[in-house]
Amino acid sequence: MPAKGNMLIGQSGGPTVVINQSLVGAVLQAKLSKDIGGIYGALHGMKGILEEDFIDMRKESATTLEAVANTPASALGSARKKPSDEECAKVFGILTKYNIRYYFYIGGNDSAEATHIINENAKKVGYDLRCYHIPKTIDNDLRENDHTPGFGSAAKFVACASMGDNLDSRALPGVKINVIMGRHAGFLTAASALARVYPDDGPHLIYLPERPFITEKFIADVERVYAKYGRCVIAVSEGIADENGTAIAAKFSKEVDSHGNVQLSGTGALGDLLATEIKNRTKITRVRADTFGYLQRSFPGLVSAVDAKEARTVGMLAVKEALKGKEPSGSIAIRRKPGKKYAVYFERVPLASVSKETRHVPDEFITKEANDVTSAFLAYAGPIVGPLPKIGRFKGVKVVKK
Amino acid sequence: MPAKGNMLIGQSGGPTVVINQSLVGAVLQAKLSKDIGGIYGALHGMKGILEEDFIDMRKESATTLEAVANTPASALGSARKKPSDEECAKVFGILTKYNIRYYFYIGGNDSAEATHIINENAKKVGYDLRCYHIPKTIDNDLRENDHTPGFGSAAKFVACASMGDNLDSRALPGVKINVIMGRHAGFLTAASALARVYPDDGPHLIYLPERPFITEKFIADVERVYAKYGRCVIAVSEGIADENGTAIAAKFSKEVDSHGNVQLSGTGALGDLLATEIKNRTKITRVRADTFGYLQRSFPGLVSAVDAKEARTVGMLAVKEALKGKEPSGSIAIRRKPGKKYAVYFERVPLASVSKETRHVPDEFITKEANDVTSAFLAYAGPIVGPLPKIGRFKGVKVVKK
Repeated sequence: MPAKGNMLIGQSGGPTVVINQSLVGAVLQAKLSKDIGGIYGALHGMKGILEEDFIDMRKESATTLEAVANTPASALGSARKKPSDEECAKVFGILTKYNIRYYFYIGGNDSAEATHIINENAKKVGYDLRCYHIPKTIDNDLRENDHTPGFGSAAKFVACASMGDNLDSRALPGVKINVIMGRHAGFLTAASALARVYPDDGPHLIYLPERPFITEKFIADVERVYAKYGRCVIAVSEGIADENGTAIAAKFSKEVDSHGNVQLSGTGALGDLLATEIKNRTKITRVRADTFGYLQRSFPGLVSAVDAKEARTVGMLAVKEALKGKEPSGSIAIRRKPGKKYAVYFERVPLASVSKETRHVPDEFITKEANDVTSAFLAYAGPIVGPLPKIGRFKGVKVVKK
Repeated sequence: MPAKGNMLIGQSGGPTVVINQSLVGAVLQAKLSKDIGGIYGALHGMKGILEEDFIDMRKESATTLEAVANTPASALGSARKKPSDEECAKVFGILTKYNIRYYFYIGGNDSAEATHIINENAKKVGYDLRCYHIPKTIDNDLRENDHTPGFGSAAKFVACASMGDNLDSRALPGVKINVIMGRHAGFLTAASALARVYPDDGPHLIYLPERPFITEKFIADVERVYAKYGRCVIAVSEGIADENGTAIAAKFSKEVDSHGNVQLSGTGALGDLLATEIKNRTKITRVRADTFGYLQRSFPGLVSAVDAKEARTVGMLAVKEALKGKEPSGSIAIRRKPGKKYAVYFERVPLASVSKETRHVPDEFITKEANDVTSAFLAYAGPIVGPLPKIGRFKGVKVVKK
């Protein structure tokens, strides 16, 4: 028998373009159940929970819910907050006071960890709680998942941006460095490879945080590509680290959040450093760097249809699983069916299996030279991102010189 | 009687998303004329002309031409090159050798200047040449024009990016600085204001190069907005300059092109400098900066329909005017008809009237406080950009605290 009571849902971590699909999916599913009374949205995740700052999701019209579902970035507000022991105790006081028996938290591995902590504490104090994590991260680094909601749309942005930037570089050649989000996992940076249409298209070099970044090798790679094509477009993860595992960008940053993450985004320092290295060590004069920044996770209108649908589904399924009550807690994972045609299924997995540690780009997706991705990666990421803009190019028959 | 001969067309300066519409418009128009023989595309603008590096545009199929028209960034390749006197002499040798009587150059004010130089030299040496400039610039800073092809689509990118970034900032509040292209003209930065839907939406502060940037005032503005909304989204032109007219970003850059322009784009230095100022001078801790960079001018699929249509039209009209031969040279300007409904007409203007000097954001588009744009600007830019993604927001009825 499922517990009767109220439901609380929150959003946490970095926003995505489809995170509100999951929220709205969960709310709509909850509205179908007689076991769920109040449906409360916590404003700014854990912060809203601790401050009892809730909005009544039952007061939102179907039209508003659908409009929000199609709007980027956590509509309830987000937070990067790991609850302390003291805060956990406070949370249970609040859950009890509001008779909250259904708890949903949409986020990445840090959010899964926060959910796991709440769940473990619920068990410890014997509080009857259905506690589910709903996956979300543009980094695509949640364990147990083939891929995560938010990645497809962010990857689409990266692929489109890289496609345009490659054309820009063809028009005005030089070296172009694009710094792409991804702290420890290079999936999003790897997605830049989807931009290639013609054999000489960039990005010509792709560096992921899964392999040590050796400046000397990087310079040699750039010189080789530049000699071949007269230009070089480079995609590099913000999280690239040296042989000792120290993030190159971390050398410029002092900010650390409560999960122990150093701030890497929101600055152009890494791109500028790499551009300076190329200018200083080679004879190449036109060297530019862009940092794609927060646009990757919040650009409106640029949505992967597959991503939007799956984000909605994991929200709905988390509520369904919680209501079934076979397992009082868990996360919903996206698995891919084997075979050439893209198809997924969803499974409940334990909270501990997705919390804290992250997943990395597997070896078979990275070339031996550690400066590109393999065709296996393209086959993996293509269907998640969906169709990209069509690119035209002149045949370019040369006029005979006189 | 129009001259009979071959035609040469080139693209110059920074690419745009619709610059190939102008190219294809000109080529298709030329194909209709019996007076034009060969249609040659110069690769990389002036560089291709000097090196006689031409492709035969008659060998391109209708399908390819349309595919290229819808592809961002100069398909012929671009250059930033002002021809010297010696090079001008060389150009006439080449024009004569290939019997080129129709000369078209797509670009901004620097490209208009290069075209003007060629035209003046043609007159001087008595070479019969129809010489037209075709307008293009995301900066929207060509004189004589109500607006320029390329601006609408770049402005759409800036508006969408600012819209998403505002939502991101609502989710994870702090101060966010977005550095937007625009050396001397702030039109593109101003377009960020189109992102606003709700009264508290950012960008909350907009700084254009048309007004001196005073750091003390900037800090005071940021503190005031932050106190009101608990967050602050700022749009700032890469070209902002101090009271002496020195570009803030120029302090970090040593690169100058042959037109005397200092390189401002392709680095995150300005954003990082402003972020550091805020961190050092206020108590605000979460401060981030993004530089939209080259994505603004080359993002595929993000096109203003009005912009694409007008870009095609100016290419066609330049060829038509040249063929008419009433005026042997000129540029095609976009004028707006008075009235509430958006409508434009096109006019031939002398080359000298659009070359070299640029146009600025007029006073009536900038607020007295010099930190925002007026509703007159929104009325001006809205129809050029076209519809933007729909944004939803919760009504947000608070749950009564227990």
